[in-house]
Amino acid sequence: MQAEPQAFDRVLSSMCTDPHPDARDAAERFLATNPGDPATYQRVADLEDEAVALLGEVAGLADPAGYVASGGTEANVQAVRIARERADSPRPNVVVSEAAHFSFQKAADVLEVELRLVPTDGDHCADLEAVRASVDSDTALVVGVAGTTEYGRVDPIPELGEIADSVGALLHVDAAWGGFVLPFTDYEWGFDHAPVDTMAIDPHKMGRAAVPAGGLLARSESLLDELAVDTPYLESTAQATLTGTRSGAGVASAVAAMRTLWPAGYREQYLRSQRNAEWLADALEKRGYEVVDPTLPLVAASVPRPTFEALRAEGWRISRTATGELRVVCMPHVTREMLASFVADLDRLEVRASVPVVGDD
Amino acid sequence: MQAEPQAFDRVLSSMCTDPHPDARDAAERFLATNPGDPATYQRVADLEDEAVALLGEVAGLADPAGYVASGGTEANVQAVRIARERADSPRPNVVVSEAAHFSFQKAADVLEVELRLVPTDGDHCADLEAVRASVDSDTALVVGVAGTTEYGRVDPIPELGEIADSVGALLHVDAAWGGFVLPFTDYEWGFDHAPVDTMAIDPHKMGRAAVPAGGLLARSESLLDELAVDTPYLESTAQATLTGTRSGAGVASAVAAMRTLWPAGYREQYLRSQRNAEWLADALEKRGYEVVDPTLPLVAASVPRPTFEALRAEGWRISRTATGELRVVCMPHVTREMLASFVADLDRLEVRASVPVVGDD
Repeated sequence: MQAEPQAFDRVLSSMCTDPHPDARDAAERFLATNPGDPATYQRVADLEDEAVALLGEVAGLADPAGYVASGGTEANVQAVRIARERADSPRPNVVVSEAAHFSFQKAADVLEVELRLVPTDGDHCADLEAVRASVDSDTALVVGVAGTTEYGRVDPIPELGEIADSVGALLHVDAAWGGFVLPFTDYEWGFDHAPVDTMAIDPHKMGRAAVPAGGLLARSESLLDELAVDTPYLESTAQATLTGTRSGAGVASAVAAMRTLWPAGYREQYLRSQRNAEWLADALEKRGYEVVDPTLPLVAASVPRPTFEALRAEGWRISRTATGELRVVCMPHVTREMLASFVADLDRLEVRASVPVVGDD
Repeated sequence: MQAEPQAFDRVLSSMCTDPHPDARDAAERFLATNPGDPATYQRVADLEDEAVALLGEVAGLADPAGYVASGGTEANVQAVRIARERADSPRPNVVVSEAAHFSFQKAADVLEVELRLVPTDGDHCADLEAVRASVDSDTALVVGVAGTTEYGRVDPIPELGEIADSVGALLHVDAAWGGFVLPFTDYEWGFDHAPVDTMAIDPHKMGRAAVPAGGLLARSESLLDELAVDTPYLESTAQATLTGTRSGAGVASAVAAMRTLWPAGYREQYLRSQRNAEWLADALEKRGYEVVDPTLPLVAASVPRPTFEALRAEGWRISRTATGELRVVCMPHVTREMLASFVADLDRLEVRASVPVVGDD
């Protein structure tokens, strides 16, 4: 385990993780490169082409367009932007379930589009009836989440595709976290399962690249063209990214991680993470907490606030869902030993709802 | 000199540079941290506070608000966004000289504000009369560039501040490249010289941090509040950044570079870069090229296209202004020896306008 500040031995809250050693090496070798200026930094620009091709393999798209973004937020903002540019309507709207990441709210604020948040069903997925009732001729984009931030749920992507198609809207899939896990499950989430137009899929989450390495994929180059801005004084001619200068470390480390881990390494990592999530869910259930079934490696449980605070004071990095449940993301750095130690601390520190919080003791 | 891919020995086109060794070390130590999640990654969040305070010192602002952005593009987009949110008008406009970076075009596209590009004067600075004629009651923002991308020129910032004030607009200064050079000149460009509201100032350019480390500064926290989006499932409560997950490497390396170099190291670096620019300008002028006087360390000269192409084929990373001049940015990695070698190649490869390009011979 590494020393601070990069120790992950108590981090249960993050959707980022310890980069794979190959990814770390590559990041260090390309630290001083800028794929935003491909005529100057040609080697990293070539690597970015490889990154996009590999991301396409992961997501079921043979000839992908896209780029390595700063993260899922940028990819989601850009997907909304593409849809806004494509829309005929002067008042375009985006339909997404309330379980979607807050970056869609950011996208709506930045891009001044209407965000229509629809409720989830009993299993925390987008409620299809509610989506159907929300779309109209002004709908520019329907979003499906493939691995929600709070419960790791996968929306019914093919059905959302049908709804999007019925009103001439684009379909975006947010697989920022789930993208490197879902290929090893039975879920239908990818470009080969549904008429997906764009996707967020982040190497720096389950892909084990170094931050910042997000991914925006598009089914065709013409979708990306909606984002292009002319670039004088760069020898390249147009720029589709939201940022200008970009991290070569992120690009190189994404390629290194995918070369090493796709597919066998990611499969093994998924199976281990999933087993850990199920073990933790079981342990919490046995202790009487209400647990949301971890269908992907993410556990949510009704641990009371005082106990949560006591665990944080003990140094555990944990976070909560909007409704206050403890949320543990079983990233690759989260081992069975860590979880056993966490559960032992939970047993020791458990605070009955009636007992006040006692500071960091 | 480092091996490829991070060799800078022929790079004359980039506004990024070889990070300072202290910055590189810090980047490597914080590679797996995310200041976008401050409750999980507390150490890097503390470093970001220090980065903003140090940037404030550089830019003449005692109690700065701001954050470490992905780069100048994000900082410029966010400044336009703040102004749009503050504006009373349903059709806000932004007034900026045509010498400004293309990120303002990107900001206008993304944010759907009107961009009013005004001509420059005979010295490539914003023409004040043209600015005065362009602002009106719908003007949300006046932009001054402190170190233009093409010629390194500094717009008359105090006068632009007066014009902005006359129509109730905000004033943004784009010092993304110039910010770590200008404190050692007589230019009036900072928060202490004019009623500047927001500024782009990038540690990963002349500040010698590792990419991605841009800077957005604001005179008050209330300006940043215009950007805030609520953040469930992060233990922090709001996020003002355009991206979500962000690079801890960028933040840590910015702090390391500024601790080491501010102010004496940056002063020395500026003096060396400025002398190099003047040496190159002189050498080019002696050879009969028309040269734009380098008032900051950036040289533009009328080298014909075939010669330019022959130099690129020789491996020199060079770029052109919109009107086709050769453009050499005298970054800290650009030594006198490099420039002498470049001029020797220029002499050897000089192609008369009448002679066709001869490939990479």
